[in-house]
Amino acid sequence: MNINKQCIIRLSRYRNALNRFRSLGFVKVFSDNLGDAVGVTPAQVRKDFSLFGISGNKKGGYQIDQLLEKLNSILGKDEVHKVVIVGCGHIASALLRYKGFEKEGIRIAAGFDIDPAKVNRAAAPPVLPLEELKEYVKANGIKTGIIAVPDIAAQQVHDMMLSAGIKGVLNFAPIRLKGAEDCIINNINVEYELENVIYYVNAMQKTGRKP
Amino acid sequence: MNINKQCIIRLSRYRNALNRFRSLGFVKVFSDNLGDAVGVTPAQVRKDFSLFGISGNKKGGYQIDQLLEKLNSILGKDEVHKVVIVGCGHIASALLRYKGFEKEGIRIAAGFDIDPAKVNRAAAPPVLPLEELKEYVKANGIKTGIIAVPDIAAQQVHDMMLSAGIKGVLNFAPIRLKGAEDCIINNINVEYELENVIYYVNAMQKTGRKP
Repeated sequence: MNINKQCIIRLSRYRNALNRFRSLGFVKVFSDNLGDAVGVTPAQVRKDFSLFGISGNKKGGYQIDQLLEKLNSILGKDEVHKVVIVGCGHIASALLRYKGFEKEGIRIAAGFDIDPAKVNRAAAPPVLPLEELKEYVKANGIKTGIIAVPDIAAQQVHDMMLSAGIKGVLNFAPIRLKGAEDCIINNINVEYELENVIYYVNAMQKTGRKP
Repeated sequence: MNINKQCIIRLSRYRNALNRFRSLGFVKVFSDNLGDAVGVTPAQVRKDFSLFGISGNKKGGYQIDQLLEKLNSILGKDEVHKVVIVGCGHIASALLRYKGFEKEGIRIAAGFDIDPAKVNRAAAPPVLPLEELKEYVKANGIKTGIIAVPDIAAQQVHDMMLSAGIKGVLNFAPIRLKGAEDCIINNINVEYELENVIYYVNAMQKTGRKP
């Protein structure tokens, strides 16, 4: 069984496409439709689903409601996941205001910052002092954290998260975190992605074609 | 010559690490140092550099200043890149306030929004009505755009960008954009990345180990 990160990301994409199809009034969907929406072959769609024991009906395709139910269960959407965020700057502001998470069963339970001026216990979610992170995470059984601090502080925050029992981290700091065997780390770096686009734009302007 | 996206992303990471080393007072650096900082083998570092004709001195390693100069030139850091952003919501706010871009030679020249209430010509950078996108992009010779609109509007915005002459897009909308042969698209999806972390955290809790 080959369930890698890209496969799970595709499940999220299928799920997103299915929600759009359903909102358009569709009841059934075929692997061709999902492949088109997500940018993979129909065979890839069927292979991904078969890894999780989901099979369609050759003539009838998949029932959207049933398929969504299964994907929701695989992706853990049948319960609410509480997440903490450390570093309450601009990225955190955007994430805290993002309405999509609630719909996806993700709730940012609290933010943490080292700057006393940012602490606001009355906010929803509250912004708490960083030294309360460990206690809060343990008391609330939180397993997932977002790191949105400058690179110089990221490793220290990651170590605090690990010692608090966090098992999954989404890291926005442009630094490689030294982790633990039993903690997953995904990295998002807007700057690198944008630099990468610019590199290809420049290369195309020089050569006149896509590298 | 195998210069793929991951290779270019690694160059950005090396560059970032080199800037940190330099700020610590380092003058020379070895492929081992860079490999450690970025999370790859020293052989990978040397291989990446050799693709661009950069060679170190076996005993002496690389001179940080010279190496940075070369990486800056490869990554197009020796000039300022103007970028437009369409969709002036929370993501755009975070990007517009992000101080790291200017340092990296990236300048967000203008934002565009369909909502007249968000238009603000006096702001720096200005927020302009979406219908002015094409004219602005052409007049300013801009080649790179960021899409930060809801999924339902993303394809239309992308089409507008293409017709204006944009050749590189960073897309935050959770949708696959149908592009053009001569335009590069990188996608960032915070929700999918976070869902992915949560999936693994759940899987680890069930099985007791990293999947």
